Amino acid sequence: MEKIQVKLPEGKIIEVASGQKIQEVASSQGINSNVIAAKLDGAPVDLDRALSRDCSLDWISMNSPEGVDILRHSTAHLMAQAVQSLFPGTQVTIGPTIEDGFYYDFRREKSFAPEEIEKIEARMRELATLDLKVTREDMPREKAIGLFRGLGEEYKVEILREIPEETVSLYRQGDWLDLCRGPHVSSTGVIRAFKLTGVAGAYWRGDEKNEMLQRIYGTSWPTEEALREHLRLLEEAKKRDHRRLGKELGLFMVSDAIGPGLPLWLPKGAIVRSILERYIVDLERSLGYQHVYTPQLARVELYQRSGHWDHFKDNMYPPMLFEDKEELVLRPMNCPHHIMMYQHELHSYRDLPLRIAELGTMYRYERSGVLSGLSRVRAMTLNDAHIFCTPEQIQSEAVGVLRLIEQVYRDFGFTDYWHRLSLRDPKDRAKFVDSDAMWDNAESCLRHALSEVGVVYKEALGEAAYYGPKIDVQLNDVLGHGETVSTVQLDFYLPERFGLEYVDTDGQRKRPVMIHRGVVSTMERMMAFLIEHYAGNFPLWLAPVQVKVMTVTDQQKEYAQKVFEDLTRGGWRAQLDDRNEKLGYKIRQVQGERVPYAVVIGDREVRDQTVSPRRRGGEQLKPMSLKEFNDLLRLEVANKISHQQSAGS
Amino acid sequence: MEKIQVKLPEGKIIEVASGQKIQEVASSQGINSNVIAAKLDGAPVDLDRALSRDCSLDWISMNSPEGVDILRHSTAHLMAQAVQSLFPGTQVTIGPTIEDGFYYDFRREKSFAPEEIEKIEARMRELATLDLKVTREDMPREKAIGLFRGLGEEYKVEILREIPEETVSLYRQGDWLDLCRGPHVSSTGVIRAFKLTGVAGAYWRGDEKNEMLQRIYGTSWPTEEALREHLRLLEEAKKRDHRRLGKELGLFMVSDAIGPGLPLWLPKGAIVRSILERYIVDLERSLGYQHVYTPQLARVELYQRSGHWDHFKDNMYPPMLFEDKEELVLRPMNCPHHIMMYQHELHSYRDLPLRIAELGTMYRYERSGVLSGLSRVRAMTLNDAHIFCTPEQIQSEAVGVLRLIEQVYRDFGFTDYWHRLSLRDPKDRAKFVDSDAMWDNAESCLRHALSEVGVVYKEALGEAAYYGPKIDVQLNDVLGHGETVSTVQLDFYLPERFGLEYVDTDGQRKRPVMIHRGVVSTMERMMAFLIEHYAGNFPLWLAPVQVKVMTVTDQQKEYAQKVFEDLTRGGWRAQLDDRNEKLGYKIRQVQGERVPYAVVIGDREVRDQTVSPRRRGGEQLKPMSLKEFNDLLRLEVANKISHQQSAGS
Repeated sequence: MEKIQVKLPEGKIIEVASGQKIQEVASSQGINSNVIAAKLDGAPVDLDRALSRDCSLDWISMNSPEGVDILRHSTAHLMAQAVQSLFPGTQVTIGPTIEDGFYYDFRREKSFAPEEIEKIEARMRELATLDLKVTREDMPREKAIGLFRGLGEEYKVEILREIPEETVSLYRQGDWLDLCRGPHVSSTGVIRAFKLTGVAGAYWRGDEKNEMLQRIYGTSWPTEEALREHLRLLEEAKKRDHRRLGKELGLFMVSDAIGPGLPLWLPKGAIVRSILERYIVDLERSLGYQHVYTPQLARVELYQRSGHWDHFKDNMYPPMLFEDKEELVLRPMNCPHHIMMYQHELHSYRDLPLRIAELGTMYRYERSGVLSGLSRVRAMTLNDAHIFCTPEQIQSEAVGVLRLIEQVYRDFGFTDYWHRLSLRDPKDRAKFVDSDAMWDNAESCLRHALSEVGVVYKEALGEAAYYGPKIDVQLNDVLGHGETVSTVQLDFYLPERFGLEYVDTDGQRKRPVMIHRGVVSTMERMMAFLIEHYAGNFPLWLAPVQVKVMTVTDQQKEYAQKVFEDLTRGGWRAQLDDRNEKLGYKIRQVQGERVPYAVVIGDREVRDQTVSPRRRGGEQLKPMSLKEFNDLLRLEVANKISHQQSAGS
Repeated sequence: MEKIQVKLPEGKIIEVASGQKIQEVASSQGINSNVIAAKLDGAPVDLDRALSRDCSLDWISMNSPEGVDILRHSTAHLMAQAVQSLFPGTQVTIGPTIEDGFYYDFRREKSFAPEEIEKIEARMRELATLDLKVTREDMPREKAIGLFRGLGEEYKVEILREIPEETVSLYRQGDWLDLCRGPHVSSTGVIRAFKLTGVAGAYWRGDEKNEMLQRIYGTSWPTEEALREHLRLLEEAKKRDHRRLGKELGLFMVSDAIGPGLPLWLPKGAIVRSILERYIVDLERSLGYQHVYTPQLARVELYQRSGHWDHFKDNMYPPMLFEDKEELVLRPMNCPHHIMMYQHELHSYRDLPLRIAELGTMYRYERSGVLSGLSRVRAMTLNDAHIFCTPEQIQSEAVGVLRLIEQVYRDFGFTDYWHRLSLRDPKDRAKFVDSDAMWDNAESCLRHALSEVGVVYKEALGEAAYYGPKIDVQLNDVLGHGETVSTVQLDFYLPERFGLEYVDTDGQRKRPVMIHRGVVSTMERMMAFLIEHYAGNFPLWLAPVQVKVMTVTDQQKEYAQKVFEDLTRGGWRAQLDDRNEKLGYKIRQVQGERVPYAVVIGDREVRDQTVSPRRRGGEQLKPMSLKEFNDLLRLEVANKISHQQSAGS
């Protein structure tokens, strides 16, 4: 029998018989049972694959991101098998993995009821216990079309018709099969810890003109412990969901009469937003940013010139035609307006860096299906700024922005975040503006800036924007999912496109660099993030209502009124609850409202002219004078202290 | 000869021969020469008119608003006569009076050069000196058409064709005539004090598709003194023109690339605006207003429901069509959004009054020809609020708003203003919402509110809005022209139209009243007004730059830097001028920039560690410590003191 050479992950080279399966090599090497697939010369394959030539092998463990993805994909197959065995006549369509899980879309008239989902899950467990072997089979496309047509799977036939390859692969387990590229786990017994998490309607190919399919979501993990932890965090995330809390705490609303994706900020949410706005504007002004106001629309020609019209039109609102000659459009970004301001006068090197900032409202056309609360909207106000500077100033400006971000995150109590430096791929000449000297300088400036500020960062080759390298700051949410909140992007392209200039020390006209930067993101996204981050328990400086004064009986009404007025005069956002209700009821209500301080006025407080504040978490403070209470509040606001409950509590 | 009875203004009845002219009656009664026309049974007529039946007469003096209007109209004729005598072939079109003056539009290929305007004015003086008699002539319309066609006056022919009356009137003076309803002065000698003030292009009938005409503006007054005073104020207004000062002081800009009527607030203007915004928001919050943020657009259906679509569509932007089904439009007003917020939950009488406030940006379509600086724009941000209250709360809410307006005007130093109470005309049933009880209650509430606040007001019968009575506060500008800045408008209509409700004490669902109110108007209009009101000399609390620190020589650089940093740390908007330039030059510059305080650092200040502030007006203060200067600034800001130069200086 012919021998072939196989290079193992650690570099060891072994000789095996041609035709041997990867699984057998793994066993012979004592590879542990967490390996569920392999990489053959870098390409992921099943363990069942037979080796036929010299090659290199790498193991894929189900504890790795790639491995858990394969596990979830196989779990999706398991679910589809269970569904089709329980509900004959249901057609399969597609079943991809998503973050933390998977889904499968089925063609079935009625949606799946909760008890049906339970049945499906039970059937999946049975099929896993049976430990069915999962096998791959390659066949000509035309043959596969005939096979699926015979099974009545019209969607698979449609998908197959659009595949250009002449040979396709199928995966079988027991009496069930699916069209799939793979790889998959070797048998259903490998799938141990899973749960179906939800159902939803979904249009075939995401197009509202097509028929509605039934989507089932699920999640799958290497161990029961990992699954349990995930479900716990999911529960926590659900509790913190900004849409739920936004409604419960009266922070914002959406109105069908106004339109989807256009939230209205209710008084309590609006207070948080205006504190946030003033906070960032004042901070930026103290750092030399010049805040401006610019209109939220412009002539279409401006976006033709900036290039947005060519590359971004699908995300823009439709233009408005005036008097058959003027076309205005709501802006998708604020940069062209700030560029017009820069161009308003001739600048000298003395004016640079020029930091033009704005709480700039912009408009993005999003399909109604993807809109969600405050996090995916059609109108948003960005904490935006554009720094116009010389190439020599890039590093110090980047340092300035990174330090600003650090300060803001400290103030909000964000600790779980990381920096990503996105660079060009020097081999990909088409994807990036062509100016090696510019890129080299800029990338090195950003690297130095990150080091100077002392943050840990990952480099992402080829992930830069067309127009320049960038730093993104990724904030993790409760589930550990990163979201780009702050960003520092260099731009060599727009200054060129608009012919921006400054007069340098030598009297020559030169081109400035532009830095697009956002710190607290849009007000909408930051508010959604803050609600979930604090689980609705806003720290004192942000809380819509800071103190609630409440009476035990009508005996304390007069003094409670005085305390309430004193607090209000002191500038605190206070409320008075002197209703004739049971104290327990009042306290439960104030806890539900997540007010940081409840001040219960009983007979003792009236007698001693004191207050006995109680923190949101339940901590009862000792009686103190109003002046002491004021000092305590002031200190807490000044230090932006957050008395948080942890995600685990 | 037949006798007729004429009732004179004071009630005296005299008998005169039929056919006697009014002029003769006036002379016989010793009426003074300022009378330039009369009212015959209430209708304005020439003094040349013969009396033919019993009637009442009233005199129109050229010192009255009606009289000066006639004088100006006659001056327009005088100008047209001068133009046509100097420039044969020039056609006349229309020549109405406007506030403080008049214009006449001529059809002529080239525009009028300054020296031509001088010639026209000189010719007018000659024609006035000739004291040509002005006479009226009635003739059949068809005959008039023939006459003007013979003169080559195509525009007059076009106008005549559209007049429904069979008889028209012409006015002649010397060899010149014009189609005109009159009345006019009796002879050109009456016209004594006039001046041509400007030229402009104007489209025939204001339509850009028509040919361009040449417009000449002028003014005319009863006396030389009145003319001189008007020209002086005009000069002052020109100096204060917010468009000129806005440019000079770097407050705002317009950009053709962005679009007309869409100003951009430059950093210095933006500072003033953000102080103004925070000022009014904080003040309103302290008075129980709940500020919100709502999107600047909505579904077209919302405006169909509110009635704006039917009645206000011409002033709205064109709608934007999404995916062939959803139509969104930029909002022309904020009320429907606030109504949606009110309807978001069921309200009880305990929630009322509910005061929903917003710095609400809205969009009005204005023809490009009428756009001007910040005062006529296509996008504006209104200091808006809607109070939802019970009918019983109207008066106290109106009092609250009027007191708020008083406080704001005091803070800005506005003293020249008056209140107008606009009421329904009970006889005009079609013009006003039909509910007598509502109107009676509301009008009486507003009257009582005005009395309670103690302001003097004028009543304007029939000037109410369709939906309810209102109070407008008219602020006078330098020329004494009133502009509606603040307003309190009751509305019975929208609550009905949207079916708004609250649950009253008796458990019944009742309809609330809505009060639309604005205090500081739109940010754009208020900024335009403030610039002109202060002539660019913003008081310390509003000034974009509050203090400028400057060195005499490089010797003081170090200490000046320290002073500058101290001031900045103290929160003052300070600038440092330590350039190596002559002090005189620096001082002239800071005066041009209208910075409230210049702090010149000389050797003495360095030695004594003091500062010697100099006020914008030129007042030099004694040397003081930085702490003393800080206290002085703080006091000035706290009291919103304005060290103004008067309009006369």
